[in-house]
Amino acid sequence: MNYKMIGYLLGVILLIEAALLLFPLIVALCYGESTLPYLITIAVLTVFSLFLVLLKPKNRQIYAREGFVTVAISWILMSAFGALPFVISGAIPSYINAFFETVSGFTTTGASILTEIEGMEYGMLFWRSFTHWIGGMGVLVFMLAIIPSMGGQTIHLMRAEVPGPTKGKLVPKMRHTALILYGIYFFLTLLQIILLLICGLSFYDSVVNALATAGTGGFSVLNDSIAGYANPAAEWVIAVFMLLFGVNFNLYFFILLGKIREVFCNEELRAYIGLFAFSVVAITINTSHLFERISDCVRAVFFQVASIMSTTGFSTVDFNQWPGFSKTMIVLLMIVGACAGSTAGGLKVARVLILIKSGFSEIKQVARPRSVNVVRLDGEVLSAETVKKANIHLFFYVLLICVSVLAISFDGFGLETDLTAVLSCINNIGPGLAFVGPMGNFAGYSAISKIILSFNMLFGRLEIMPMLILFSPFAWKRH
Amino acid sequence: MNYKMIGYLLGVILLIEAALLLFPLIVALCYGESTLPYLITIAVLTVFSLFLVLLKPKNRQIYAREGFVTVAISWILMSAFGALPFVISGAIPSYINAFFETVSGFTTTGASILTEIEGMEYGMLFWRSFTHWIGGMGVLVFMLAIIPSMGGQTIHLMRAEVPGPTKGKLVPKMRHTALILYGIYFFLTLLQIILLLICGLSFYDSVVNALATAGTGGFSVLNDSIAGYANPAAEWVIAVFMLLFGVNFNLYFFILLGKIREVFCNEELRAYIGLFAFSVVAITINTSHLFERISDCVRAVFFQVASIMSTTGFSTVDFNQWPGFSKTMIVLLMIVGACAGSTAGGLKVARVLILIKSGFSEIKQVARPRSVNVVRLDGEVLSAETVKKANIHLFFYVLLICVSVLAISFDGFGLETDLTAVLSCINNIGPGLAFVGPMGNFAGYSAISKIILSFNMLFGRLEIMPMLILFSPFAWKRH
Repeated sequence: MNYKMIGYLLGVILLIEAALLLFPLIVALCYGESTLPYLITIAVLTVFSLFLVLLKPKNRQIYAREGFVTVAISWILMSAFGALPFVISGAIPSYINAFFETVSGFTTTGASILTEIEGMEYGMLFWRSFTHWIGGMGVLVFMLAIIPSMGGQTIHLMRAEVPGPTKGKLVPKMRHTALILYGIYFFLTLLQIILLLICGLSFYDSVVNALATAGTGGFSVLNDSIAGYANPAAEWVIAVFMLLFGVNFNLYFFILLGKIREVFCNEELRAYIGLFAFSVVAITINTSHLFERISDCVRAVFFQVASIMSTTGFSTVDFNQWPGFSKTMIVLLMIVGACAGSTAGGLKVARVLILIKSGFSEIKQVARPRSVNVVRLDGEVLSAETVKKANIHLFFYVLLICVSVLAISFDGFGLETDLTAVLSCINNIGPGLAFVGPMGNFAGYSAISKIILSFNMLFGRLEIMPMLILFSPFAWKRH
Repeated sequence: MNYKMIGYLLGVILLIEAALLLFPLIVALCYGESTLPYLITIAVLTVFSLFLVLLKPKNRQIYAREGFVTVAISWILMSAFGALPFVISGAIPSYINAFFETVSGFTTTGASILTEIEGMEYGMLFWRSFTHWIGGMGVLVFMLAIIPSMGGQTIHLMRAEVPGPTKGKLVPKMRHTALILYGIYFFLTLLQIILLLICGLSFYDSVVNALATAGTGGFSVLNDSIAGYANPAAEWVIAVFMLLFGVNFNLYFFILLGKIREVFCNEELRAYIGLFAFSVVAITINTSHLFERISDCVRAVFFQVASIMSTTGFSTVDFNQWPGFSKTMIVLLMIVGACAGSTAGGLKVARVLILIKSGFSEIKQVARPRSVNVVRLDGEVLSAETVKKANIHLFFYVLLICVSVLAISFDGFGLETDLTAVLSCINNIGPGLAFVGPMGNFAGYSAISKIILSFNMLFGRLEIMPMLILFSPFAWKRH
């Protein structure tokens, strides 16, 4: 294990975090709020990371395990330091709560322990929403985009941070791939800000909501989430953009290259849109009696399904009050999530497709042992390795859910709350059902449960393997 | 597809069912009850199966797909006909309810739609418990044991009916293997009957409870299940025998051969006992405040954990009233189940071990791509095929649970009831939590939900693949 290089990379990442904290600091300045919490945090981060950066590793070579470990530790450290402004300012006095909230921000979950959001400072709420935007595309991808040459096999960092299964690099150079991704991300966010301004939202609200949408995060600056604006046009804009940010960013790159046909033939995109359309129709029929006008029902369902499938977690209605079928649909959509290579969480549509296709291929194989069955996605034959990885992912996903639900069951909220809390965190959604429904929050859980749920979010955002390798003694052994 | 041979085999199986119905008929005679329901059913079965048996296939060759399809159809037909006595006698007037109850019997689930059991006829309750015993070891295995030569590759029938992953045949001849299994099964059942008689249960109660224990079924003849006897000694006997019937029957054969060392070194057995011991200790600590005496607590927890792990479903306490941690433990134990090659359901300890071992081997592989990692069970290297089968099984298991929970969600019982109802059925347990807890039952579900849950039980008992192949158009195509 190349400890020096890991330390160096962590130092660079924390320096970037210090730089990013200048944005909420500026917001605080604009609104005449105290800048001390940000300044202290920036100072702490700078001192800590300078020690690491000064390690100056001679050997810059990193392998897969260094990549995974670096990504896992950097996300934990970023959250640990990112929580400081909340604690220092007194906005969230408990460090565990602030850590939970920051992990929830960076992992684009949006699960909150706050019961009263509207009284908070503008700077704090900006930082909270900004963590979504940073975490959405990933800070390591950002690092790769802005720093000309990190040396070493930086593909290992990218692989560990970008949600798979995807094909990897868009262009031969890692740095250019990272730049293109951030370019698209930045442009779409800007577009959404402009549209929200046109809908009549204030500049501040347009920015924070666009940041939270882009990262498919879900933190809002109102107690009633997006419902609080009572602005149907803004709801439509946010709903559509939630869907857009759930699409594989590679496809936007294809559009830029004029490869429109490849985009429309993409199986994952078709399945994503198909599942979305089916869910909207099914839930609309099931909930139509709850609304006075059918247009309100369609808007609310469209918004909610987009919010859950993209794993954002914004809400305009309390789906905890919906009939059993709709609630169950919501829970199942949480598990599927959106497209690989997007800022969204969940199992990812591509992975679900691989699992379904390989499962049904196995039925054929068992029924006719001598037949030859290959599994294809987008016309290409999937390797046994890809199928195996998807299956192993499912296993650890299920195992993690089982262990986590058991671990938080001591708090006595009951199976429905515990299960949906874990599903909501591991899939980076935000709200669950019952006590953690759209109108509830995670404040009631014990400190231990909050830490467990925080790690669920991290496992989910990094797609399990980096965290497992971090905690695996095998990876750390000298040989 | 060799239709004639499938028809012939189904005919033989239904004739066997007709013969087995003579047992409840004798019970009814002994208690002076009407024998008409049994006589009519036997007549219907005989006529129906004679048509099939007279097909007399010239080509007796069957392949894997014929084996799977035969097993799947035979279980559905056995339940469809086995439900007739309940309907004809008026004990269960609705055919759907009777079908649910009979599927629950044959699949050794023990989930019931009956709200008042104690008023029922002795013959009917005997038939209900007897279906557990028949389904536990499997009627196709029984057929192989009693009929000298079926011709063809009967291993395909055995493979489809005996819960895997196991090593298959004990001895070179299929028929001898089947005879040995049924011999052990019969002897253990007899031993339990004798012990229950010694504990003071009546002959009738000893027999029906032993039949339900042997099949790890869980139907009881009292409204309060085993708690109704208020007989601690009998509770201990049943608890120990539930555990014993959850052990791989191959191990009993090894004991007969004097291979004691192999038994004690068996990894699945060790994991099964280890998990059982851990669960008893953990739940005892968590529930001790609910009992006046610690000995009562230990007995109740020992009984309940044995009942759930062996997927029997008997109860002496209402675990729906237990604290969150204990309830969650119960739900997770439902998923694991007992040993492969036993009469129990669930994922099976061996399969969970394969999944865990291959999962952790993958962590090593990802962390150090050039390392060579093999997965072993009982010292033998597991093939990639075995690991793949376990993973595909997990995928279909999860998919089936998701689809089923959604399908029954229209009835409005809520996620906790729906999820545990499906888990209880697919793992062949019996009770779940909330509305389907030990003191509740499945009567409230709609007819459609009952059919869905019935198929969950069948999917679970036959370990998914046979039922999937039955419903797969591919398997039926001529080429």
